[in-house]
Amino acid sequence: MSTRLEVWAPDGVPEVVAGDDLAALVLDSLRGDHGLADGDVLCVTSKVVSKAEGRVRAGDRDAAVEEETVRVVARRGPVTIVRNRLGLTMAAAGVDASNVATGSVVLLPLDPDASARALRHEVHRRTGANVGVVVTDTSGRAWREGQTDIAIGAAGLLVAEDFAGRTDPHGNALAVTLPAVADEIAGAAELAQGKLGGRPVAVVRGRADLVLPPGEDGPGARSLVRPDGGDLFGWGAREAVVRALTGDDADRAPFGAPAVAHELHSAVGRVVGAGQALSSALLLTFDDDPDRVVLHLPGDADHAAVAAVCFAHGWRIRGWERAGDDVVCGVSPATT
Amino acid sequence: MSTRLEVWAPDGVPEVVAGDDLAALVLDSLRGDHGLADGDVLCVTSKVVSKAEGRVRAGDRDAAVEEETVRVVARRGPVTIVRNRLGLTMAAAGVDASNVATGSVVLLPLDPDASARALRHEVHRRTGANVGVVVTDTSGRAWREGQTDIAIGAAGLLVAEDFAGRTDPHGNALAVTLPAVADEIAGAAELAQGKLGGRPVAVVRGRADLVLPPGEDGPGARSLVRPDGGDLFGWGAREAVVRALTGDDADRAPFGAPAVAHELHSAVGRVVGAGQALSSALLLTFDDDPDRVVLHLPGDADHAAVAAVCFAHGWRIRGWERAGDDVVCGVSPATT
Repeated sequence: MSTRLEVWAPDGVPEVVAGDDLAALVLDSLRGDHGLADGDVLCVTSKVVSKAEGRVRAGDRDAAVEEETVRVVARRGPVTIVRNRLGLTMAAAGVDASNVATGSVVLLPLDPDASARALRHEVHRRTGANVGVVVTDTSGRAWREGQTDIAIGAAGLLVAEDFAGRTDPHGNALAVTLPAVADEIAGAAELAQGKLGGRPVAVVRGRADLVLPPGEDGPGARSLVRPDGGDLFGWGAREAVVRALTGDDADRAPFGAPAVAHELHSAVGRVVGAGQALSSALLLTFDDDPDRVVLHLPGDADHAAVAAVCFAHGWRIRGWERAGDDVVCGVSPATT
Repeated sequence: MSTRLEVWAPDGVPEVVAGDDLAALVLDSLRGDHGLADGDVLCVTSKVVSKAEGRVRAGDRDAAVEEETVRVVARRGPVTIVRNRLGLTMAAAGVDASNVATGSVVLLPLDPDASARALRHEVHRRTGANVGVVVTDTSGRAWREGQTDIAIGAAGLLVAEDFAGRTDPHGNALAVTLPAVADEIAGAAELAQGKLGGRPVAVVRGRADLVLPPGEDGPGARSLVRPDGGDLFGWGAREAVVRALTGDDADRAPFGAPAVAHELHSAVGRVVGAGQALSSALLLTFDDDPDRVVLHLPGDADHAAVAAVCFAHGWRIRGWERAGDDVVCGVSPATT
């Protein structure tokens, strides 16, 4: 006995242009194969969705990238990693110049979850099949070479399996286990599609347990996007340094919610103590306000350095005062 | 016509213990199914590989994490992201306490590429089948919720499809397209295996084009690991700030190779000019040494801030000098 998946990617999908009936093209391409059945997951590349929705621009790629960018996360040489208006952190904001007429660029769909919902509903209306839909895109990632396809839109699908409260066969809690199955489905689709065969459609059969009943579209792929500031890597390493030292309030959010006081304390200690943590006696908390902390610092502590560390940890400096040979610095969480 | 993949994950794999003949267990589990054929990719979770190799420790998870850690990349509250001795950037260094007897932890295999090679050779010797092998592990990622399975070991497999020099059907170059197919295969395997069914083995059939001839094991999954410093996210955002301000030489590498001079210049300008770039007239390059640059700075520029920006950009400060109301600061790449 075994669990079994099948994944197939049909040939013969014609070039898609603005205004095309995507559901008709997809269903045509799958005719003669198994067709679609309840519980299948239908995957389409964001590129054909974008083309059908008219998200193609002539000419300037840089202008298109800027249009899609919410903020630049990291830049080095020719590489620009941005967070785009979908919350996706990607090179070039997901704007792509491959598999499109030379001189044109393709932007991501305006709302890929909505695109997925529309396709799911049309497939159901025309065939009666209750399928999940994933809109895929190709994305690099931190720390690893190459790209994988991920889910940027989804409908009718549990995009992540939540094991919170479940236990493995040994009785261990699986508290933090949250397989991002929509991304794994997108990757499996890419394996069948390839990049050069003109196969933008794929079907994954065998995980009907992830497909929601008709009328339930689920949280969408947007729910796989970590909120800005919910991540430890909201800025590239160099950008983090520059932003913290610049200290613009607009740059705070990607550093995340305020650190707990002892984390701030140990970070400040590392910087002003040339690598040595301050003694905990040097950290005082106001009795009447646990969110106000006073840092006792050596008199020669660099104010810009302390301010940058506080900024990066989500704290705000309230004031400096001399205290004998030392300096005291009052700080509080930036949210208060 | 379509391209087609099949993925299956057999039930009935017994609990694996140190010294077990992994190839025998895997082949037994696949008997009665399709068996294995030339061009299949055999996937096994790192957990059973580790168990067979005796990489299980009783007791303290923190000690095991420390044993596997090369450096801490980011830490916040209970979350610790480290780069481990395999070069993998992962929570808890990849040390896992699930699917193992309570009170024990499983470390990653010592050399998962070698484990994959051994399994590939044993399968070939016992069955004659030329299969690729992937050792999988479950990993979180930056910017996205949840985890996917990735390839941490591989043998006999093209782990990435390289399209450099290839063109799409429109004639556009696919220069940077490098699908990390080994990771997509690992994800597809996870979809069939699930986390609770005790199915550590999976077979992916349909991408025989990725499987290398007998005797060729290929670059392994290690080749998917970006070298330390080859990435824009070598430190968590907060850690980057603290490390740059501390200025320990040991912390340089994860920031990457020295930035080009104009990137350094614009970063310094942003910090000392309160967000305004320095005029380019303020950047002077020594005629006799293009790697030595002199920064003309306002007299009140904060030295610690300038030093931190230089550090994060891979440059080293050679000296400070007064020049009227200004300060000049000589810098050169840290590698020279």
